[in-house]
Amino acid sequence: MNDVHRNPRPYEIPARRRYDAIIIGSGSGGLSAAIGLGRFGRQVLLIERKHMGGDCTNVGCIPSKSLLHSSHNLGPEPDAPDLVLKHVRTRRDQLREHELEEFGGAEGVTFVYGSGRLVSANEAEILSHDGSSWSAVGDDIILSTGSSARRIPIDGLPENRYLTNEEVFELTETPQHLAIVGGGPVGLEMAVAFRRLGSDVTVIEAAQDVVPTALPEASAMLNKALTQQGIVIHTSHFATAYEASTESLILRSSVDDSQQPLELNAVDKVLVAVGRIPNTADLGLAEIGVATNEAGAVVTNSRGQTSVKGVWALGDMTTSGGTTHFASIWGRRIIQSIVYPRLPIGGEPLRPTVVFTAPELAAIGTQPPQKPQDVVRITVDGSEIDRSYTDEIGLSTMIVDVRPPTGEILGATVISPRAGEIISTFSLAMKTGISFHRWYGTVIPYPSYGEMITVAVEKYLRAVSDDVGGHTWRWSTGLAARLADRLFRR
Amino acid sequence: MNDVHRNPRPYEIPARRRYDAIIIGSGSGGLSAAIGLGRFGRQVLLIERKHMGGDCTNVGCIPSKSLLHSSHNLGPEPDAPDLVLKHVRTRRDQLREHELEEFGGAEGVTFVYGSGRLVSANEAEILSHDGSSWSAVGDDIILSTGSSARRIPIDGLPENRYLTNEEVFELTETPQHLAIVGGGPVGLEMAVAFRRLGSDVTVIEAAQDVVPTALPEASAMLNKALTQQGIVIHTSHFATAYEASTESLILRSSVDDSQQPLELNAVDKVLVAVGRIPNTADLGLAEIGVATNEAGAVVTNSRGQTSVKGVWALGDMTTSGGTTHFASIWGRRIIQSIVYPRLPIGGEPLRPTVVFTAPELAAIGTQPPQKPQDVVRITVDGSEIDRSYTDEIGLSTMIVDVRPPTGEILGATVISPRAGEIISTFSLAMKTGISFHRWYGTVIPYPSYGEMITVAVEKYLRAVSDDVGGHTWRWSTGLAARLADRLFRR
Repeated sequence: MNDVHRNPRPYEIPARRRYDAIIIGSGSGGLSAAIGLGRFGRQVLLIERKHMGGDCTNVGCIPSKSLLHSSHNLGPEPDAPDLVLKHVRTRRDQLREHELEEFGGAEGVTFVYGSGRLVSANEAEILSHDGSSWSAVGDDIILSTGSSARRIPIDGLPENRYLTNEEVFELTETPQHLAIVGGGPVGLEMAVAFRRLGSDVTVIEAAQDVVPTALPEASAMLNKALTQQGIVIHTSHFATAYEASTESLILRSSVDDSQQPLELNAVDKVLVAVGRIPNTADLGLAEIGVATNEAGAVVTNSRGQTSVKGVWALGDMTTSGGTTHFASIWGRRIIQSIVYPRLPIGGEPLRPTVVFTAPELAAIGTQPPQKPQDVVRITVDGSEIDRSYTDEIGLSTMIVDVRPPTGEILGATVISPRAGEIISTFSLAMKTGISFHRWYGTVIPYPSYGEMITVAVEKYLRAVSDDVGGHTWRWSTGLAARLADRLFRR
Repeated sequence: MNDVHRNPRPYEIPARRRYDAIIIGSGSGGLSAAIGLGRFGRQVLLIERKHMGGDCTNVGCIPSKSLLHSSHNLGPEPDAPDLVLKHVRTRRDQLREHELEEFGGAEGVTFVYGSGRLVSANEAEILSHDGSSWSAVGDDIILSTGSSARRIPIDGLPENRYLTNEEVFELTETPQHLAIVGGGPVGLEMAVAFRRLGSDVTVIEAAQDVVPTALPEASAMLNKALTQQGIVIHTSHFATAYEASTESLILRSSVDDSQQPLELNAVDKVLVAVGRIPNTADLGLAEIGVATNEAGAVVTNSRGQTSVKGVWALGDMTTSGGTTHFASIWGRRIIQSIVYPRLPIGGEPLRPTVVFTAPELAAIGTQPPQKPQDVVRITVDGSEIDRSYTDEIGLSTMIVDVRPPTGEILGATVISPRAGEIISTFSLAMKTGISFHRWYGTVIPYPSYGEMITVAVEKYLRAVSDDVGGHTWRWSTGLAARLADRLFRR
């Protein structure tokens, strides 16, 4: 670590007031942009309201994955679950400290705590924690303020029983019965973790099935796998009220008002995970004309630029899409656009998504519930590969949409242990335009979970050859792909 | 399943004596070739000496991965380890039955038990289990007889304490102290499994480190990781003798004769896993002129053809290379060569290898211990990615050899949980000629183990840009790659 460039006083107002770039928010995207611009010799002011590292480090990926890992290896002691919760906090705090120290060495970056707000397209006002305010000027301003948990009212639920991702990692005692409102990635990951810790867990999802953005058959399979782990799932329901005297959570049908409400008993904590709200309210956006959509997200173009020249935005707070890995990719696009504005930027990147349950659910690209006419949808069941047999995996699948005759991959969904790794192979193939014809013949190790890909490729080639009524097509497309391979190999 | 084509009497001599192809050995390669040729309408005779499925199903991958899995989830009962051994056998036998049934439906394939031997380039003699013999004629003959464990003498070691992969899965009691001679994939996987079952485990490796075919730094890291699990490893040693009265195994230095022998005490079983011998002795090869190398492996060309026209060979018994996934790929090459002899066959496939220890060690391509001058060797330490932090992974790494300025990937080694999946991404990239420049910008999910790839790509680009003294190179090569991407995207 290099202490030379470190700003030793992040709580004080820095002497410099003029920067090449001002970045508001130090999550994954803001940090990437700050470090990258600093490496290009730019002077950067990075403003953070709360914790270095943003939601991911503090109330997101890091503690949630740490909890998923530690809950999996639970000791036999009666207080083991509570110790796990404490351990996760300790690890999280250590990482935060480490990031703060490590980041201290970033070239050209001045880091300060405070709340940033736009005054114009190249000036920001910073409200420090001590109440003083000051302003700074920057040629470019990058907004990276992330999002907050959407809070919904549940009548009668006391504040100390109402959790979001902000509070859940502060629990010191494992709940007896945790009700989770929202069956998306956050809700389901926490369901798996707390079930492992021994809590009774009930998930309430308003849509027809969990992870409503996934293919319906994938959602149904994940629902089944989680149910087998003892997680109770109520789909098509809202949580509407809580009766503190009996610790009952009242659920109502989201599709049929006349249905009798359900009553969950002995619910001591309720985790609400029903989506995110972009943190765009107090930034002064409307005043300077930065456009937002109806959900409050900042509208950005393919370079990450907002409707106001010189003002950029990325991550959860924008229409370009959130998650840690994606925000950091957009950070790089914005760096390139600032440093080399005339270089073409390339197509928008594809975002793989992973739900880190067990099994994992990973997806990339576009897969409409009803496949389009001209698309071949290949489904591989986990039982078709030997690793599922040796590891006694009950439920797993791969569903790939491929367009003939080119074999272009349009989207893929994987439910499997390690799906979060397998999906990277699709990310690479789709980014670089590898068709299923060119994929054919790639050796996947045996016995790996990824063997489902080999099965998918062969099923596709068989499906295509059946269409034209013979095997010759399969071989000749394989041949064409191989020839093309050699001609165009770089 | 389709019973129509099933040969109901695999122990009887079939009526048909004339086939399009005769295949000797029903392991992964032989089965792939038989099923594939059958689908092309060929009449195939498939001869198996022992068990359908070959070593993989019976004494290889299947029981070993099943044991690795089941030993990981050991119950608290005192006889749990022995129950695991029994469970693994039961699962293995079920799969064997299942494969036999499923295979019964393969189109055009007649399956018989017996030992096959070549009489000429298109005639085989089959010795049935009842001692009778008969012969069959085939236009093509495919040899797929696999390999056997190499047995080395250990003075004084009783036969019932001497195990190879053939006997180890028949154990009904978990050894107290299992000595494993040979620190290759088989030896190390069994070391992990039996350590999990509670055995004391000592590994003896004659070379300087375990997995001597891997990069030395990878071998050293795996050694360290296994040692942390309580496995004792003696490198640069042979096991030479056994003293039954004291249950002592005597080890001698493989590098220095004058060194005092080591004595391992209370060793009740010795597993010998020091490589494989091709099963080529009793096939009549020399008589009809099929060339073998000094190790006894059948020499094959890039189509899988032997020195005798019409005689083909694949898998462990050949110079083209073993393992299940590779034998089945070669099976497909031979099918294509038989069915479409004039179609070009393409370059030889790349073989990823995986040692399924914890962590896993996976490798692909060529990586000499000393990197060539014109190659950039990128090393990523697991601590550079957040998943290692959340999952508390102590030892993991990715080492990639890349050739500038094209960014061509020459080889990769990965030690990590899930390395056996991560390596598939390299297999696809190397097969289709994706350079590190084109890889740049591919979104890998956060936080996955595969993120090491993103770090490797960025380190490479930084290394290359440092070479030419600036950042511009990095961006412009990225640009070139992106332009090329769009121009050549198919």
